[in-house]
Amino acid sequence: MTTVEIICFGNELLIGKTINTNANWLGKRLAMLGAELLRITSIGDVLEDMAGVVQEALQRKPDVIITTGGLGPTFDDIALAAIAQALNRELELNEQAVEFIKERLAKLRKERGLDFELTEERLGMAMVPKDASVLKNRAGSAPGVVVKENDTLIFSVPGVPSEMKAIFDHEITKYFNLDPDVQFYERSIKVNHIPESELANAISEIREKFPTIYIKTHPHSSKASAEGMIEVEIHITSLCSEEASVKLKEAQEDIVKIIKTMKGTSDKKPKITLQIND
Amino acid sequence: MTTVEIICFGNELLIGKTINTNANWLGKRLAMLGAELLRITSIGDVLEDMAGVVQEALQRKPDVIITTGGLGPTFDDIALAAIAQALNRELELNEQAVEFIKERLAKLRKERGLDFELTEERLGMAMVPKDASVLKNRAGSAPGVVVKENDTLIFSVPGVPSEMKAIFDHEITKYFNLDPDVQFYERSIKVNHIPESELANAISEIREKFPTIYIKTHPHSSKASAEGMIEVEIHITSLCSEEASVKLKEAQEDIVKIIKTMKGTSDKKPKITLQIND
Repeated sequence: MTTVEIICFGNELLIGKTINTNANWLGKRLAMLGAELLRITSIGDVLEDMAGVVQEALQRKPDVIITTGGLGPTFDDIALAAIAQALNRELELNEQAVEFIKERLAKLRKERGLDFELTEERLGMAMVPKDASVLKNRAGSAPGVVVKENDTLIFSVPGVPSEMKAIFDHEITKYFNLDPDVQFYERSIKVNHIPESELANAISEIREKFPTIYIKTHPHSSKASAEGMIEVEIHITSLCSEEASVKLKEAQEDIVKIIKTMKGTSDKKPKITLQIND
Repeated sequence: MTTVEIICFGNELLIGKTINTNANWLGKRLAMLGAELLRITSIGDVLEDMAGVVQEALQRKPDVIITTGGLGPTFDDIALAAIAQALNRELELNEQAVEFIKERLAKLRKERGLDFELTEERLGMAMVPKDASVLKNRAGSAPGVVVKENDTLIFSVPGVPSEMKAIFDHEITKYFNLDPDVQFYERSIKVNHIPESELANAISEIREKFPTIYIKTHPHSSKASAEGMIEVEIHITSLCSEEASVKLKEAQEDIVKIIKTMKGTSDKKPKITLQIND
């Protein structure tokens, strides 16, 4: 499986100003693509720290690193400077990036009557690490960047969610080069009135029966007691779609069978809800 | 300032199942306490990876490490095993933890008629790294844990948000030992019809005037264009509350003055909204 690390730049993540929905969205996308996300790191807008985190990640040799944030035109948008420092490369003006930015300004002029100059700040978004390529941003001004360092591909996308998503879906998914048959299937079972520890114990034999299936129990209530809802999440990523889908269905049925044999709490029968996402 | 790192254990964070609201909440709390959160790392439920991330963090010598998740009674709740491995210590049964768990079971019995045994799984929540102490969990079964390694205090809290918050607020904030005068003040200014890059340029002189104040501009709209709302966030953490509050107010007034001199776009006057959180 393609291994991935995500690095999110931005003080706003550390002071609790912004919830990291980008990492969550990317995690879902990567799971759907059959890639394995190993780690998410959030770090503040300090050049040395950002460059350091990129270097540390490179040392672990993931196939892909995705950075979010720090690509805009302002004072503290220093993602590309940090990546350049981590790679020990210079920043250079990328002609394609300049073209993208000019196209964007022309589009804003034509469609919304906004008249912006190609200022030094905006040109700053076209300064990329040596030998990097740029990725078109259909939803904003800052181009995405892709650069290869040894066997790792580093993608740098904006922090603005709509721009991050547009660049990822339109420009990045194709790099994953996955067998089109690779699929991610997910099913879940919600059940209440059963203590999580007893449920987990009961399904451990199912884990042994289906070693390629990921099974996790989550408490779903703020009252972490048996009256709360437990969700049993099961999913599988597989190259052989039909086989995976059949296995997953079987695992779900086995889990439901086991739950039905369990005594509920407070004389209440467990209530089971199935969710099928394939 | 007290330096902090957060480590969040849980596959669900990596596959995009759960948004990391815990890190966001802790970031806000730590900012309010005047502490400096340096990094947030999310890692999956694999013992070696978890122990490795704890060790890496310890090497950076923060004053505090807070881990979330992995404290429950189930198969993959291995936070304490990972921390023990990172510290090269054994796990041992903690008597206070056993008492806490028994008290919790008694409470569930009395208040909700739930009759749970002290099973092996539940006792597993009382196996803590050697020389660790436990922290009462008023909202659930798994006690929190605190353990000192050289000059770093490691706190381990559950991933269930209500339990994490209860333990943090009731048991952890006192460890910060901060001057009661340390305060975090925040104000923000929302303005539209001004391009973010021009606004950032205009307020750079205000940054120089107030070097201890954090000023950041955020685009607030999915259309990353001048029609979207920009938020100028300004905040300060200071030992001298009154002085900090006065400075912040002055910085906000200066920024508003500058915005009023700027020409809006599309012949629309910039609309300014102030938000004061002190």
